[in-house]
Amino acid sequence: MRTAAQYLDSLRTRDLRLFVDGERVPDATVHPKVLPSIRSVALTYALAHDPEHAALATAPSELVGGPVNRFTHLFAAPEDLVRKIELQRILGRASGTCFQRCVGMDALNALFIATWEAGPDAHGRFVRWMTGVQERDDMLCGAMTDPKGDRRKRPPEQPEQFLRVVDRRDGGVVLRGAKMHQTGAANSHQIVVMPGGMLREGEEDFAIAAAMPVDAPGITMVLGRQPSDDRKGGPDAGNRFGGQEVVVLFDDVFVPAERVFLDGDVAACATLLEAFAGYHRASYGGCKPGNFDAMVGAVAAVTDDAGTRRASHVRDKLVEMIHLAETIHGVGLAASSKSTQHGCGTWQVDPVLANCCKHNVTRLPYEIGRIAEDLSGGLLGTMPSIADLDHPEFGEALTTAVGGRDRAHLLRLVENMTYGAGAVALRLECMHGAGSPAAQRIVLERHTDWAERMAHARRLAGLPE
Amino acid sequence: MRTAAQYLDSLRTRDLRLFVDGERVPDATVHPKVLPSIRSVALTYALAHDPEHAALATAPSELVGGPVNRFTHLFAAPEDLVRKIELQRILGRASGTCFQRCVGMDALNALFIATWEAGPDAHGRFVRWMTGVQERDDMLCGAMTDPKGDRRKRPPEQPEQFLRVVDRRDGGVVLRGAKMHQTGAANSHQIVVMPGGMLREGEEDFAIAAAMPVDAPGITMVLGRQPSDDRKGGPDAGNRFGGQEVVVLFDDVFVPAERVFLDGDVAACATLLEAFAGYHRASYGGCKPGNFDAMVGAVAAVTDDAGTRRASHVRDKLVEMIHLAETIHGVGLAASSKSTQHGCGTWQVDPVLANCCKHNVTRLPYEIGRIAEDLSGGLLGTMPSIADLDHPEFGEALTTAVGGRDRAHLLRLVENMTYGAGAVALRLECMHGAGSPAAQRIVLERHTDWAERMAHARRLAGLPE
Amino acid sequence: MRTAAQYLDSLRTRDLRLFVDGERVPDATVHPKVLPSIRSVALTYALAHDPEHAALATAPSELVGGPVNRFTHLFAAPEDLVRKIELQRILGRASGTCFQRCVGMDALNALFIATWEAGPDAHGRFVRWMTGVQERDDMLCGAMTDPKGDRRKRPPEQPEQFLRVVDRRDGGVVLRGAKMHQTGAANSHQIVVMPGGMLREGEEDFAIAAAMPVDAPGITMVLGRQPSDDRKGGPDAGNRFGGQEVVVLFDDVFVPAERVFLDGDVAACATLLEAFAGYHRASYGGCKPGNFDAMVGAVAAVTDDAGTRRASHVRDKLVEMIHLAETIHGVGLAASSKSTQHGCGTWQVDPVLANCCKHNVTRLPYEIGRIAEDLSGGLLGTMPSIADLDHPEFGEALTTAVGGRDRAHLLRLVENMTYGAGAVALRLECMHGAGSPAAQRIVLERHTDWAERMAHARRLAGLPE
Amino acid sequence: MRTAAQYLDSLRTRDLRLFVDGERVPDATVHPKVLPSIRSVALTYALAHDPEHAALATAPSELVGGPVNRFTHLFAAPEDLVRKIELQRILGRASGTCFQRCVGMDALNALFIATWEAGPDAHGRFVRWMTGVQERDDMLCGAMTDPKGDRRKRPPEQPEQFLRVVDRRDGGVVLRGAKMHQTGAANSHQIVVMPGGMLREGEEDFAIAAAMPVDAPGITMVLGRQPSDDRKGGPDAGNRFGGQEVVVLFDDVFVPAERVFLDGDVAACATLLEAFAGYHRASYGGCKPGNFDAMVGAVAAVTDDAGTRRASHVRDKLVEMIHLAETIHGVGLAASSKSTQHGCGTWQVDPVLANCCKHNVTRLPYEIGRIAEDLSGGLLGTMPSIADLDHPEFGEALTTAVGGRDRAHLLRLVENMTYGAGAVALRLECMHGAGSPAAQRIVLERHTDWAERMAHARRLAGLPE
Repeated sequence: MRTAAQYLDSLRTRDLRLFVDGERVPDATVHPKVLPSIRSVALTYALAHDPEHAALATAPSELVGGPVNRFTHLFAAPEDLVRKIELQRILGRASGTCFQRCVGMDALNALFIATWEAGPDAHGRFVRWMTGVQERDDMLCGAMTDPKGDRRKRPPEQPEQFLRVVDRRDGGVVLRGAKMHQTGAANSHQIVVMPGGMLREGEEDFAIAAAMPVDAPGITMVLGRQPSDDRKGGPDAGNRFGGQEVVVLFDDVFVPAERVFLDGDVAACATLLEAFAGYHRASYGGCKPGNFDAMVGAVAAVTDDAGTRRASHVRDKLVEMIHLAETIHGVGLAASSKSTQHGCGTWQVDPVLANCCKHNVTRLPYEIGRIAEDLSGGLLGTMPSIADLDHPEFGEALTTAVGGRDRAHLLRLVENMTYGAGAVALRLECMHGAGSPAAQRIVLERHTDWAERMAHARRLAGLPE
Repeated sequence: MRTAAQYLDSLRTRDLRLFVDGERVPDATVHPKVLPSIRSVALTYALAHDPEHAALATAPSELVGGPVNRFTHLFAAPEDLVRKIELQRILGRASGTCFQRCVGMDALNALFIATWEAGPDAHGRFVRWMTGVQERDDMLCGAMTDPKGDRRKRPPEQPEQFLRVVDRRDGGVVLRGAKMHQTGAANSHQIVVMPGGMLREGEEDFAIAAAMPVDAPGITMVLGRQPSDDRKGGPDAGNRFGGQEVVVLFDDVFVPAERVFLDGDVAACATLLEAFAGYHRASYGGCKPGNFDAMVGAVAAVTDDAGTRRASHVRDKLVEMIHLAETIHGVGLAASSKSTQHGCGTWQVDPVLANCCKHNVTRLPYEIGRIAEDLSGGLLGTMPSIADLDHPEFGEALTTAVGGRDRAHLLRLVENMTYGAGAVALRLECMHGAGSPAAQRIVLERHTDWAERMAHARRLAGLPE
Repeated sequence: MRTAAQYLDSLRTRDLRLFVDGERVPDATVHPKVLPSIRSVALTYALAHDPEHAALATAPSELVGGPVNRFTHLFAAPEDLVRKIELQRILGRASGTCFQRCVGMDALNALFIATWEAGPDAHGRFVRWMTGVQERDDMLCGAMTDPKGDRRKRPPEQPEQFLRVVDRRDGGVVLRGAKMHQTGAANSHQIVVMPGGMLREGEEDFAIAAAMPVDAPGITMVLGRQPSDDRKGGPDAGNRFGGQEVVVLFDDVFVPAERVFLDGDVAACATLLEAFAGYHRASYGGCKPGNFDAMVGAVAAVTDDAGTRRASHVRDKLVEMIHLAETIHGVGLAASSKSTQHGCGTWQVDPVLANCCKHNVTRLPYEIGRIAEDLSGGLLGTMPSIADLDHPEFGEALTTAVGGRDRAHLLRLVENMTYGAGAVALRLECMHGAGSPAAQRIVLERHTDWAERMAHARRLAGLPE
Repeated sequence: MRTAAQYLDSLRTRDLRLFVDGERVPDATVHPKVLPSIRSVALTYALAHDPEHAALATAPSELVGGPVNRFTHLFAAPEDLVRKIELQRILGRASGTCFQRCVGMDALNALFIATWEAGPDAHGRFVRWMTGVQERDDMLCGAMTDPKGDRRKRPPEQPEQFLRVVDRRDGGVVLRGAKMHQTGAANSHQIVVMPGGMLREGEEDFAIAAAMPVDAPGITMVLGRQPSDDRKGGPDAGNRFGGQEVVVLFDDVFVPAERVFLDGDVAACATLLEAFAGYHRASYGGCKPGNFDAMVGAVAAVTDDAGTRRASHVRDKLVEMIHLAETIHGVGLAASSKSTQHGCGTWQVDPVLANCCKHNVTRLPYEIGRIAEDLSGGLLGTMPSIADLDHPEFGEALTTAVGGRDRAHLLRLVENMTYGAGAVALRLECMHGAGSPAAQRIVLERHTDWAERMAHARRLAGLPE
């Protein structure tokens, strides 16, 4: 298993075509807007070598005959799904943001299931490739969401809005299109593309699941902006860790057949989508409560510094933050422990609870953040730069006015998590990651047996069936 | 294990001193205000003999060397705690209300722990008695809440507001006082009294845990009123099942030493209180989602009947009810699966998640009920009696006006669950059962390591510790 | 203007055909299930003669050349609309429930507008009739809601589900059908029927607005049940005031032409519906905050009695109740003060704010009630009957256990307002009165100029229009 | 009255000592981080000369015998308070952010009342100075909030945390300390300092209300950072308008007596604080709904562009935004129309409704923003820079992927209002401006007559008083 240092080294060898603010980035590993997100991923490597956490951060793999990083592991038992949530909480707490490696893990497991359903050929190709991922301990970018353009149109009506096969040659496929919101793409070794929506007969060109190096010819990455991203690397950044989302453009990227897992199998792609959605919606029950562990601590420290932490209304609000975070965590845990075994041998989360978990994540973090803004006081939005605190003429007076340097730095951290770069992970990603709220409601509705519910109620009301 | 019929028979042999609306009840088992709650308890006996559910409803006991009803069982593994939640959901769905037997189950387990901490004598006495409970398959009333009078005063300042030992004689103790809100008391075989609050040194007379038959001399029970309780047994009742709460008055009740489990052991009573609170707060993650399964079905059926079920806003609200109910269930499951083993061998729920579960129960059911009232339409609150529908002169016209008899009966069921007798189980009990919301917040606050949280946040903010 | 006593006398002269629980009521004015609602209406008469409130409760009428009860008055200035809200709050507070006279007031004003639009004949007929209403100070039942059956069908597809003209003879019309949820119908002098939904060409038979005595031949009334209605008149009632909803069946009721205001004028009926909805949705900004004034007082008194009123979390929750009630009130006031003058001379509320007011009423009362249930403690749902407190053997012990007779009676009042008969006014009526939540959303959407909003945003974003 | 151009000119003549990010700003009027906020203030000047809005934006003043900008006007009638709200909504919509001139207006009115209570000398000084403000049409910085340091300590225990008189000489006072969160300070002509909290006897040195030019010797201003403030002036800014908050440091600033309005009059300062709080808490009922008008438009335009605007769940969420914004507006209007006349002749808002208005502003904007983030889609948080869209190599493909340039710019506007620089106005200022939520609850509690409420409830419950 790679160490954090080996991970950093491995990133430097890539010939990445990455643009930030209109400029090509010569070395992503030192760019101030990328570095914080690399640091977050590196935690996932470091933890596997940390004696305190190694038992949680690693797992035995039959494929390689030894321990692998849990982020490349198959969910071989319900406990694996529960441990995933626990591991995510620890990393969420440690980084205070998104550590970007869950999409890959959840995609691996979903592909294991979908390729098994597609047949032995597909499954065999996938397992061979996955064995390499485990051996090298790769960081994967799970690339699902297409641009989609006008949501009323199907892929064939606007093919340019979807990643698709545009050619087949030399024992492989040629891909064109784009994938949006790619978490951690610029920090990855490989991209795993998957369809972003349910497909129908006649839409086989879009039914493609395949893997390729992040620096495959034809791939261009454009870093998404984040609030206050220009502060990254500076004293006002608030948090040295960060998340990352990238638009990945595919300009006729060739993928050889051994890395094409699904091609035109619309049914298997539906399985893939649903399996991934379930895993990834439960994942938010791990990382986000971890993030909020850090936020609660920061807000508590701010109030402690201001002398209000023990005031009854402050205590009440801090407890409310805890309650909401634990609600998210609890449902995520339950989705994991109440899992069922798939025919291929791996375990799947409970779909109702997984969607319920994610649906709470589209709501409760906003209330947690609202309370954080309440308890932090107005200074959260009006504090001058740290540079001002250092000013020889007025820095001392200003430092007194803002309540001291500790409070200033703590508020910068809260600012990062509520309004700053970290807000992408703590709000936007909560809302749209793994599917927007409307998507979860569809699953909740579909998994309810309405006829049975109504029949039972009729019986209880004393009516004939 | 008793069958439902044997349970009913066993109730008739008691010489219960029960009053309803100022009148002594000669036979509780046929009183229209008591019968619905007996029917609910009977479900817990019937399920153990139902081939479909017996595996869930029973469990092996080492004490009696065979299967016992799960409601008398010790939590011997995390799975037992999870199964408890699953069993509660099934019974909650079947009855649409409180089936009253969980307090006893949770009290047994808490007493097992507390008496073990108190020492081998106490534990031995308790286990001997509990073995009998399992053998006879007793229904227990777990009696905890004292009247409390003026909440600012301690028990010794207003002893009449707390159950207490007033005499010791003939190898036993004499108890005086009252216990409030006693779920299922009049449907039980035995009462298990326990202190209702944390006690201090000098308050030993209140530190009493003991068991006695429900018809022990000196015990008087007074049935609590419920909304629309006068309709019970009639066509407007809405649900033939019901819950029950009783005020139990203790007028110098003698309890022989073999049924006195804790007496003056303030520390063990604290353990008892906390263990019981944990178990019972998680229990709401089972029964209430079950109740709401029935409510959702009833509301869906009403909208189906009115032709609106597939309207987008109706679907959206039905899904919201599902989401909220599953949130409660998920956290209850998680509190159970994330359990820890006590020194005595049994398992305890996670206290943070158990309190988080119950805290959601003090909120989400109100929103679920609000939606139910929305979707049911105004007729929910304005429908005439079923007797009017039968009237020879205008019954037909009225039946047409209310949308038919089916809709009328379904609305009576929803009315029962939102405004009627069932609302005690679906709202009030949600709010105050196993402790009011403020009690859960105290536990959530106490179980958070604030210093550690703040220290971590300081590190993340780049500050020295 | 009638006094309260004269109002009661006037009710006795009616030959009402009213049924309660399947039985014809010989004298509605003494029936225990009707009397509480009569008492509430009587307050509206009494207030006009109360020196402290007469200025608010009366207004000068040009039609009769002197003061009339404000409940029969036209809104001649924005101040009239504001005073309506203020008057409603006082009566809502005094009764703690619905006083049933607002529908008639709002219907009068809406009919004034709609008949003016229909033409001088219609308007003349209406004004002549209305002058009599003012002179006699009549209580009116404004009858709008039809049964509607299957909501997917139009009136001509299921005519039996709508009030309609079935014959025209002898200079009048014959009406058949039913009106649902008729607030105060059995306490009224006249019924004013109006269409309950938007009608189209070809649906003229349903486009009828007319007035008739409550005891016109062919009219049958059936009283709606309310939770705990059997307690009315007894010691457990909680509140001597009450509301009332009635199903009114029309079995070929003849209405002479002079009391037929609109007949087949689909456009004027649309005006009528919208005008009424606006007025009545704002009305909830008056009465409901008044009801909650009483509820807040009751809950505060309960906590005061239990010694918890000054605890920080209790104070916080009491303040929250205040905040929510004032939010309702504020928007109701604003809808009234921001009014516009109609061509006929009277003033109309702001439709956006009126619908916003009512929409809050479908939500905030549920949270107010939730807090009331929290602060009242579990005894709210478990208290025995007042008769039990009087029992010679255990009454004293029970009275001690429930915290004394004062607390018992206060809890009965809170119970009435949250779970009891009063809950129809404080919950169900809040949800569905003057239109269900979905109806308000339609108006809010329709009154928003989306194109203008989007164009402005484009300008702000620096885009061309 | 000044024009917008004259206002800009007037700012250039100031010798402002302003620091941004540690650097002194030579000319605030051209600094990219200041200019957006100047543009917002300029709107308040432009509107007074805009024929469409002049009637609303100006008002006649007895002091200068002619029309003045409404932002320097006294509230001479309830209509003035209502028009203030209406004017604020227009400006809030036009700018999409805080236009910074309300604090001055509300401070003028509060000082008019407080100095009148302090006596004719104080009042005369104030009126003379205020006449000049009206004549010159000055922009005022109303400076109230002190740093406060440790909230448990009174001002004399930590004088450095409060603005205070440190010397009296040459017919004036010398001030030292700081004022925090000073909205629009760097865009103003004068600063009006006022105490930021209730003071007691012995704290007279802190009881100072006075005016001074923004460039008075000893004054240093430090601009507060805002999220993404480095983007201001660039293509990713999202909104050319902006708000501004400044820390103002007072290093022995001399104020001559004619501009000292209150000095040591603790009672008048209490009046000042309460009057200002009332006015300013109602003000949020104007500007914020205006801001949300723009946000709703932007979000609607984004969904329109993506083809989802007419989807039922999108319509439902857009309506919800409208509903919440109008709730804020309605209560603000009501606080204004339900005003009372002070002895000095001006009118004051209803304190309960004003605090209720602001209290809703600490909650509902967060839900409005949450919906905006939902409807905007994930791209809101992941969109690359506008510079990337222009890139010669991949710009076209990227523009296709993000849905076109229009969508990109609209999303930048929404981003500005939810996560960007504008979020300070639309979230933080909503939370803490004019007092944090806890402050409003104190007023709501204090203005409730609890004894009367409880007495009324006892009567209703049939109890003796």
